[in-house]
Amino acid sequence: MSSSTTRNSSTQNLSQAQAITSEEIFTAHLGGKLSVELTQPLDDRRDLSIAYTPGVAQVSAAIAEDPRLAASHTWASRLVAVVSDGTAVLGLGNIGASASLPVMEGKSALFKRFAGLNSIPIVLDTTDVDEIIETLVRIAPSFGAVNLEDISAPRCFELERRLIEALDMPVMHDDQHGTAVVVLAALTNAVKVVGKRLEDLRVVISGAGSAGIAVAEILLAVGITDVVVLDSKGALHTGRDDLEGMKRDLAGRSNPRAVAGGTEAALSGADVFVGVSSSQVPEAHIASMAEGAIVFALSNPNPEIAPDVAQKYAAVVATGRSDFPNQINNVLAFPGIFRGALDAGARRITSDMKLAVAQAIADLVPEPVFDQIVPNPFAPGVAEAVARAVMGAVQSGE
Amino acid sequence: MSSSTTRNSSTQNLSQAQAITSEEIFTAHLGGKLSVELTQPLDDRRDLSIAYTPGVAQVSAAIAEDPRLAASHTWASRLVAVVSDGTAVLGLGNIGASASLPVMEGKSALFKRFAGLNSIPIVLDTTDVDEIIETLVRIAPSFGAVNLEDISAPRCFELERRLIEALDMPVMHDDQHGTAVVVLAALTNAVKVVGKRLEDLRVVISGAGSAGIAVAEILLAVGITDVVVLDSKGALHTGRDDLEGMKRDLAGRSNPRAVAGGTEAALSGADVFVGVSSSQVPEAHIASMAEGAIVFALSNPNPEIAPDVAQKYAAVVATGRSDFPNQINNVLAFPGIFRGALDAGARRITSDMKLAVAQAIADLVPEPVFDQIVPNPFAPGVAEAVARAVMGAVQSGE
Repeated sequence: MSSSTTRNSSTQNLSQAQAITSEEIFTAHLGGKLSVELTQPLDDRRDLSIAYTPGVAQVSAAIAEDPRLAASHTWASRLVAVVSDGTAVLGLGNIGASASLPVMEGKSALFKRFAGLNSIPIVLDTTDVDEIIETLVRIAPSFGAVNLEDISAPRCFELERRLIEALDMPVMHDDQHGTAVVVLAALTNAVKVVGKRLEDLRVVISGAGSAGIAVAEILLAVGITDVVVLDSKGALHTGRDDLEGMKRDLAGRSNPRAVAGGTEAALSGADVFVGVSSSQVPEAHIASMAEGAIVFALSNPNPEIAPDVAQKYAAVVATGRSDFPNQINNVLAFPGIFRGALDAGARRITSDMKLAVAQAIADLVPEPVFDQIVPNPFAPGVAEAVARAVMGAVQSGE
Repeated sequence: MSSSTTRNSSTQNLSQAQAITSEEIFTAHLGGKLSVELTQPLDDRRDLSIAYTPGVAQVSAAIAEDPRLAASHTWASRLVAVVSDGTAVLGLGNIGASASLPVMEGKSALFKRFAGLNSIPIVLDTTDVDEIIETLVRIAPSFGAVNLEDISAPRCFELERRLIEALDMPVMHDDQHGTAVVVLAALTNAVKVVGKRLEDLRVVISGAGSAGIAVAEILLAVGITDVVVLDSKGALHTGRDDLEGMKRDLAGRSNPRAVAGGTEAALSGADVFVGVSSSQVPEAHIASMAEGAIVFALSNPNPEIAPDVAQKYAAVVATGRSDFPNQINNVLAFPGIFRGALDAGARRITSDMKLAVAQAIADLVPEPVFDQIVPNPFAPGVAEAVARAVMGAVQSGE
């Protein structure tokens, strides 16, 4: 049993240095990573009479009379559905619903571990956006929030937008917004390390999928103007006639110098590289970046450039992996975002919330240095700080 | 906050005698009755590298290569979805998906407590059979078995039949088959108490919904011929021209004496009354039953006749409640049935399995007496014995 992905030797060496074997990984996944447990003892007939018949009938009857009681007397209102159709799983692509399950179980485990939230994976045997929405609307009374995960672009944009309208609960595509929020947090601290200002940065984003588009949007939202986004055919610019939808829209609002071409053209003199594409970047292109360069090579499991190689040229290097320093991982954001939204009773996850969360995460590292621009996800209080930021944004918005 | 159901004074007194207050019941339901927990520690970056990125990618890639690995390396293959549309919840009727949730959470709690199975409630905001099937097929990679619950008749018959065809996993409507199996187990022992033989019995079933039809079917299957089933208009017989579907079919295979009329006509001289209808039965009709009568008043939370009243005339009295002796509760059957089917890798829950389970449950009370015809659900080994019976039936069938 082995991964079908090809690893470059550098990351493989670093991974081996930590001595995590495939056998260990597969053993840890045997039987799955989640368990459903009881919150109350069920040890005798009396317990059974309370949790089940006849007692439970009183609770069901009360909810039938006053539907608001479902929020307080069932688990559903605070249960996060981790939803995927398996079309864009990590760097593995469209591997299908069943193969995506270990990732979704992991995500649910993180929801519990970092934010104390119950969560269940719902994986879908359809990739049709209409059918996915219809399906989730039909089972919506079963949960209280939706974390969309590993759904391919550009479908994910329409799916998220329409689901937000269709469901009366927080909905967030984490590959977009979780990534964007943590990238902004990391960049906020990285510019302090290199002594630059956010608004002066020349940023190159490799990848115009869910994460790339969302990262570009949040950087534009905080006032960075020189953002060049590359898809597989090169930089998005208004001169391209092959662009549609979000890409076309973004081309009109980014890339003010009308850079054309690939990473070679885009990275020359750039301050920031954000890789969210799975495609490797040649060392020479990274070498051509400006002094004090910042490299976020975020593809999982294989970064766009090996971090030890990037470090030869960049002042700050980050990856998406938990086994390197500066892990730009959504786990810093999504547990607390959902926790805060549910605690606040919010029906939407707003742009204001996301910007507040990015700042809150950045603030958790008061004195950033090159190998510590984001907090350790295991540091106590990360999700709580994020949840507070979300609730603060809700209160400011009222 | 109080139940909207009206209780007769007798059961209310008995319930109060056990001193379970509404406050206690509602407090026990605060926040719901289920929790999703991690099966592995997630305490540091190394754990994160195993359960999530980058390690999890190896497992997902392996499942993509060999889909059979989903059965061993995710939780889904042994996860039971407890599915309801809220159309026939306990004795409360069509109260909707959200109001049904406390019951479904209770059911999931019982799956864990009695059979060690993970289970999640999936409640549906649609009552259309086509839509329910379509929805469950789309999310089917998320779980490994379906327990249908509290779905109204006659829709439940078509739904179960079609779902069994559509899903490659065990599917069972517990209100039908769980009830039927436990009734047969109880009756097997009750006839020992009163010194009668199953095949000689005159049986009256009040209720031609999911439970009533299924009980009739299993009793006919073991050779009881004199079964009279009553719906709201009286006994099913071939002379009625208002019958369709399952009822019409059953009328042709039961009621050989062509009894017409209601409980008064049917119960006169009858050996067994099985109540699964929510409608009350007058004391005088119970009084007219044969010597050594057996009364199973199974409606929840309000039995068709108060057990202390029935005891004046019947030799054996049972209810569906956990706060009286002889609880004929599905909890004796369904946890072990699903456990056995999943352990055996069975794709269907068959008639042979159900008959084997009824016998196994009966056998757990070697010397039945009037107030102990079924095992205590908390007795050790019930689910294990049931699961063994299921696996035995699978092996005999091969």
